[in-house]
Amino acid sequence: MEIGLIGLGKMGFNMAERLRLGGHKVVGFDFNKEATARLTSLGSVGVDTLEDLVKNLSAPRAVWIMVPEGDPVDQTIARLLPLMQQGDTIIDGGNSNYKDTQRRHAALKPQGFHFVDCGTSGGIWGLKEGYSMMVGGDPEAVNPLFPIFETLAPGKAEGWGHVGPSGAGHFVKMVHNGIEYAMMQGYAEGFSIMKAKTPLNLDLVQISKIWQKGSVVRSWLLDLTADALEKNPTLDGLTAFVPDSGEGRWTVFEAIDLNVSAPVITESLIRRLRSREDNNFTDRMISIQRNAFGGHAVKKA
Amino acid sequence: MEIGLIGLGKMGFNMAERLRLGGHKVVGFDFNKEATARLTSLGSVGVDTLEDLVKNLSAPRAVWIMVPEGDPVDQTIARLLPLMQQGDTIIDGGNSNYKDTQRRHAALKPQGFHFVDCGTSGGIWGLKEGYSMMVGGDPEAVNPLFPIFETLAPGKAEGWGHVGPSGAGHFVKMVHNGIEYAMMQGYAEGFSIMKAKTPLNLDLVQISKIWQKGSVVRSWLLDLTADALEKNPTLDGLTAFVPDSGEGRWTVFEAIDLNVSAPVITESLIRRLRSREDNNFTDRMISIQRNAFGGHAVKKA
Amino acid sequence: MEIGLIGLGKMGFNMAERLRLGGHKVVGFDFNKEATARLTSLGSVGVDTLEDLVKNLSAPRAVWIMVPEGDPVDQTIARLLPLMQQGDTIIDGGNSNYKDTQRRHAALKPQGFHFVDCGTSGGIWGLKEGYSMMVGGDPEAVNPLFPIFETLAPGKAEGWGHVGPSGAGHFVKMVHNGIEYAMMQGYAEGFSIMKAKTPLNLDLVQISKIWQKGSVVRSWLLDLTADALEKNPTLDGLTAFVPDSGEGRWTVFEAIDLNVSAPVITESLIRRLRSREDNNFTDRMISIQRNAFGGHAVKKA
Amino acid sequence: MEIGLIGLGKMGFNMAERLRLGGHKVVGFDFNKEATARLTSLGSVGVDTLEDLVKNLSAPRAVWIMVPEGDPVDQTIARLLPLMQQGDTIIDGGNSNYKDTQRRHAALKPQGFHFVDCGTSGGIWGLKEGYSMMVGGDPEAVNPLFPIFETLAPGKAEGWGHVGPSGAGHFVKMVHNGIEYAMMQGYAEGFSIMKAKTPLNLDLVQISKIWQKGSVVRSWLLDLTADALEKNPTLDGLTAFVPDSGEGRWTVFEAIDLNVSAPVITESLIRRLRSREDNNFTDRMISIQRNAFGGHAVKKA
Repeated sequence: MEIGLIGLGKMGFNMAERLRLGGHKVVGFDFNKEATARLTSLGSVGVDTLEDLVKNLSAPRAVWIMVPEGDPVDQTIARLLPLMQQGDTIIDGGNSNYKDTQRRHAALKPQGFHFVDCGTSGGIWGLKEGYSMMVGGDPEAVNPLFPIFETLAPGKAEGWGHVGPSGAGHFVKMVHNGIEYAMMQGYAEGFSIMKAKTPLNLDLVQISKIWQKGSVVRSWLLDLTADALEKNPTLDGLTAFVPDSGEGRWTVFEAIDLNVSAPVITESLIRRLRSREDNNFTDRMISIQRNAFGGHAVKKA
Repeated sequence: MEIGLIGLGKMGFNMAERLRLGGHKVVGFDFNKEATARLTSLGSVGVDTLEDLVKNLSAPRAVWIMVPEGDPVDQTIARLLPLMQQGDTIIDGGNSNYKDTQRRHAALKPQGFHFVDCGTSGGIWGLKEGYSMMVGGDPEAVNPLFPIFETLAPGKAEGWGHVGPSGAGHFVKMVHNGIEYAMMQGYAEGFSIMKAKTPLNLDLVQISKIWQKGSVVRSWLLDLTADALEKNPTLDGLTAFVPDSGEGRWTVFEAIDLNVSAPVITESLIRRLRSREDNNFTDRMISIQRNAFGGHAVKKA
Repeated sequence: MEIGLIGLGKMGFNMAERLRLGGHKVVGFDFNKEATARLTSLGSVGVDTLEDLVKNLSAPRAVWIMVPEGDPVDQTIARLLPLMQQGDTIIDGGNSNYKDTQRRHAALKPQGFHFVDCGTSGGIWGLKEGYSMMVGGDPEAVNPLFPIFETLAPGKAEGWGHVGPSGAGHFVKMVHNGIEYAMMQGYAEGFSIMKAKTPLNLDLVQISKIWQKGSVVRSWLLDLTADALEKNPTLDGLTAFVPDSGEGRWTVFEAIDLNVSAPVITESLIRRLRSREDNNFTDRMISIQRNAFGGHAVKKA
Repeated sequence: MEIGLIGLGKMGFNMAERLRLGGHKVVGFDFNKEATARLTSLGSVGVDTLEDLVKNLSAPRAVWIMVPEGDPVDQTIARLLPLMQQGDTIIDGGNSNYKDTQRRHAALKPQGFHFVDCGTSGGIWGLKEGYSMMVGGDPEAVNPLFPIFETLAPGKAEGWGHVGPSGAGHFVKMVHNGIEYAMMQGYAEGFSIMKAKTPLNLDLVQISKIWQKGSVVRSWLLDLTADALEKNPTLDGLTAFVPDSGEGRWTVFEAIDLNVSAPVITESLIRRLRSREDNNFTDRMISIQRNAFGGHAVKKA
């Protein structure tokens, strides 16, 4: 079928390619003209304006947005809406907060537009391996998009599903990322313990490779970790600084709002915050407290 | 080659079978005569005494112990030693504490015996899929056992390795299990959050299956979780009670001894402890504190 | 000076009394006629309508609201506003979210009303010992209220302060409660450990009393804990169920929004959530995972 | 009464002084001759050998050891024993592990010596305010020491007690310190959150002083914190590096051994470990994982 794709970054460009290879007509827009030119050169239709994007698609249109969450999504929708017709569908495939999604759906539906949310996992590997997609929205909006999901997914009926009403897709993706935080932190702690056990002189690369086969902790994340460790076994040249892009903290907020205790996902987030705290104030407060009651020496800067 | 196997439980019996299928001569002992009879019926040699086990093996012998950690390992070694000869090798394939392993190694070596530790992962699936094995010990003891490891492993050169001196195998397996705790807790928290989001009415079985393909959180553990959830999507009939068999707490102790902060593995253990605390005293203490300063009502039993 | 007081519950009634004893004229309103009658019987002016409350105060008026946070505060303000005059001051002394406070301040100021926030600590003991108060608001609104704060506080210039602009009082009180959660959890864990050490047969009441004098952990909270433990040393008859009234979770949200890692306050909140989870789903998920990979028995309900 | 005191450091010297002021004869030993000379100059008996210490005391003797836990305690006992007589008592007033205490008690008792453990809290403030003491040991050993405890304590019958058999004193002190960790971490997190809320421009010194009077979080630790903050409100010149001297980690080990979930005391310890991890390996591992699956940029050193 035909699909418009707005945002040809790391994720969007590869999705466009996977769709083209799957036989769909892809019309792709990005502010970056190099990206659209490259898309065209590969056989899709790269365009430089949203007007051209809409013109190149037959109604009822399906336009997939793959831009950073928050204002960029709202702005894209605002600019797109006047160009589109009732019955057209917008799919937000990015990492939006499900509450924003539900707000957007509530605003678009009365105007006659469909709004579908798709939590998309798979990162930079999706072009080759397919994307895991959790889709939320009204069935009449989601059903016509099946050919798109079937192509993007790892298998026609695998790795994707319509998980619920509007927002459900982004909600499930949010939790997915929360779990991802916990898994990453778990692996990282384990490797740190092994690295610290210097008398055993353990080879972290060897161990990561052993665990890839037959162990209980084998996973795709471990496969990637093993490869990355092999390239840089001591992690030299890296700073201990871990960003978070939003979904982890939303998962924590949601757990608390739902009165669900989720200590490990929460702590995984907190450790990321900690990684960005220079000359930690909390630790310095404890130093002065220890000094105040026990006369313990403080470490000077 | 020939190998003795002591302990034909869930793990040991299947390992014996995988070895037999791989062309090795297996002599298996267990106190349970049904298990030894079944082993014999499948084509290996089931015996009812350690004397018979030793007699049925040619020197230098390799005897693999697969019994619960702690006293059972010490007792097995004590009873085995008088029957064996210098140059024979004992392999502890169970979940022993690496410090016990190092102590046993230090005791056996001067007496002329080899002692090898093998952390074995794979659970009840190992017969079919192979076992992931982390081996510790002296090279002269480990090297002759390569045919055994190559057969038990998922692939000849995959899923196992000689990771270091005595104790290294059990140390790495211990950390492996610590990571396993964190992964399990991470998944479980995520599913709990989704279950609690009742307005979205999410289908946990569907979601676990989606994530198996293409998602960042895909793993073998998730595969098993998806299957188990499908059989009992509401987890009815289960009690919220989680045992721990030792390796998780050892990982926590070790992290602290090494001055490595490992909050997520630690919290995963703590939650297991919490699952077994009935009428939690800590919570009741907080209740009386709240009542004492704020007059907040306490909930009566 | 004169002051109106809306909400004569556990906190409000005692504050009214402390103000009366300090020489102020107090006009108190509550829906509960018993409370207003009792106030009158003690020498203050108890009234049954907001109209009467306002009428009994000279302009510019100061009206202190002591009602549950959220809608009750908004409703009280909405009903009060038409009765009051420009230049009058409303003080919110309850546990409101500082963001609500800032919103209310922003709405009231252009209408000519002052709005002051006062985080009030001290619980049911304030009548006797005085209240600790953290005040936020415009100086021209806060300054005329000094006589009120000086009377309510433990000492004229002790235990209270104008800590910043609108919202600052409630923000500081919110953090105060976060710290309170951590302290309570810390004490409760310590006593739980001692209780569990059965071979030492420790007397928790005795120990709490020892620590009250000279120890590093002495505190007012410990004083109250010691008294409460003495009355019920085994905490019999209590259920392990701990509510949370909002400020703890707001502190956690705020810490995350500010990118401050606050693991102990956060975990103290999470444990309260945990105390209210019956037949914990997370634990049951872990049980089925353990069963799935290792054949470990699950505990049936 | 007469008492020997070995170890005239920060704690020991002040205890000797408080005992002298209370009318006891104190014979004090330290390797540091300045300390013994100073003790003598104040009116006690400073000695430079253990022989002299023992000679200056009448049998049955009471000798209080105030040295670092571990080997120093064992060495002191070993050197003291040949000089003493059956019926003499050794008191370990330091921060020993209660398991060491029980081992020492079991070794000394059959030789006819008494061994008493005293967990001592109060830090550098004890001289003035008295020490909180938790005493363990056999009643026939503890009872004759009452005059000593009554003098050291904040009040004759306040702030100390015989809490149980050998080891009980050190056990309770260990838990006391665990609670102390949690309280310090709780306060420090709270102040960090307030400091980070830059739009409110909160004055941490002012707030700490407000909370000292009437608030629920008032405590001796807060008093000290307020004083320390006043001297250095920005904590300039300090490094975020927090040592731990043993009792916190023992509390964590003990909680786990007792199957008591104590997440907040545990996390308080873990944060101290974290404060000492430079260029945290765990965080760098997470960085390469994020890069590996999502192409997220890593921060270079």
